[in-house]
Amino acid sequence: METHFQKELEELKENLLKMAAMVEEAIRDSVQSLVKRDSDLAQKTFEFEDRINKMEITIDDMCLKLLALRQPMAVDLRFITSAMKIITDLERMGDQAVNISERAILLNQEPQLKPYIDIPRMAEIAQSMVKDVLDAFVTRDSKLARSVCARDDLVDGLNDQVVRELLTYMISEPKTITRAVLLLIVARCLERIADHATNIAEDVIFMVDALVIKHHADAEAKDE
Amino acid sequence: METHFQKELEELKENLLKMAAMVEEAIRDSVQSLVKRDSDLAQKTFEFEDRINKMEITIDDMCLKLLALRQPMAVDLRFITSAMKIITDLERMGDQAVNISERAILLNQEPQLKPYIDIPRMAEIAQSMVKDVLDAFVTRDSKLARSVCARDDLVDGLNDQVVRELLTYMISEPKTITRAVLLLIVARCLERIADHATNIAEDVIFMVDALVIKHHADAEAKDE
Repeated sequence: METHFQKELEELKENLLKMAAMVEEAIRDSVQSLVKRDSDLAQKTFEFEDRINKMEITIDDMCLKLLALRQPMAVDLRFITSAMKIITDLERMGDQAVNISERAILLNQEPQLKPYIDIPRMAEIAQSMVKDVLDAFVTRDSKLARSVCARDDLVDGLNDQVVRELLTYMISEPKTITRAVLLLIVARCLERIADHATNIAEDVIFMVDALVIKHHADAEAKDE
Repeated sequence: METHFQKELEELKENLLKMAAMVEEAIRDSVQSLVKRDSDLAQKTFEFEDRINKMEITIDDMCLKLLALRQPMAVDLRFITSAMKIITDLERMGDQAVNISERAILLNQEPQLKPYIDIPRMAEIAQSMVKDVLDAFVTRDSKLARSVCARDDLVDGLNDQVVRELLTYMISEPKTITRAVLLLIVARCLERIADHATNIAEDVIFMVDALVIKHHADAEAKDE
């Protein structure tokens, strides 16, 4: 039974990584649809979102079954309940990718306001955060999780830069305002994706550190 | 033992409602600090957020203990794991109230751009959504949860109205742009609060309906 449970946990981990990969791809496609002015690619994100939503339900069910049938204790219990929270974050990142695609479709109908440099950079960092934070979770690597938190500052910095630049456009050229506001929203969506990744990273750090503290306490209790 | 477990579940429900009431108050204070140009009130939200964060940890622990020690089945299991997701949403609504307060403090240092009408209206609806969705959750009232989802459209509609109005200000009077962007952010924060409430409402509907479907299936199985 122990082995079976371990196998189920492995399957859960695989599904989490698969869902994260789908989210990564949705982020990439949504921003590339803007950069390459390719609204068909934006459409693809909408199908992706549907698959991401279904994946959330599948994993949620899997977790509930593990809780009900295996009645896991301590470490595994925390792992499974954390997984249930993480898939909510992943699903909402998928929603943000859809938000970006919707704005990309509108922006692609107008002349391009400016070359896109900071926004694809933000997307790249956000994608790396999604990938790494899930890796950190399944391998219980709090160092990697900390590096994800650090990258959130980079994304926030880039967002501030985008906001400042777009404000300058708007002030000097009022006819750019509609497009500038759409780009502000795109940048903000990426910032929110990074925030979701950071939320997960904080949970991972909390989970791993609680474990470390517990191990210490157990070791001390044994020493006494 | 059964009775003890029921008592613990009641305590969990009470804590959830208490946390929701704190979030409601944080939203109210943040928007009132803008409307009344009272930056001291905005400061209060920061303390509130701290209490909300602590509450999240307390309830999360409570849920983990219930899962580990009581090993609940079916309906109670789903209730507890849902509670763990809901407190994440509540905590993030608290973050949004802080975001609003930060913008209020900046806006209060400048002449008021326009009378605030739609934003307080959005806040009022968002507060009612927070209150009702938690009531819907603890009483498993899917009708009330559906009414929360319906109110999300009202908030989105008001947000669109705010965006259109502020765009007009920005285009006709470029020196209003900085303030207008701050107000756009405030409106967006309220929209996100409403989104969080809607996310919870959807979970409640899913939870209650799954229950209804299950009851049906059980009844049919009995009939056969």
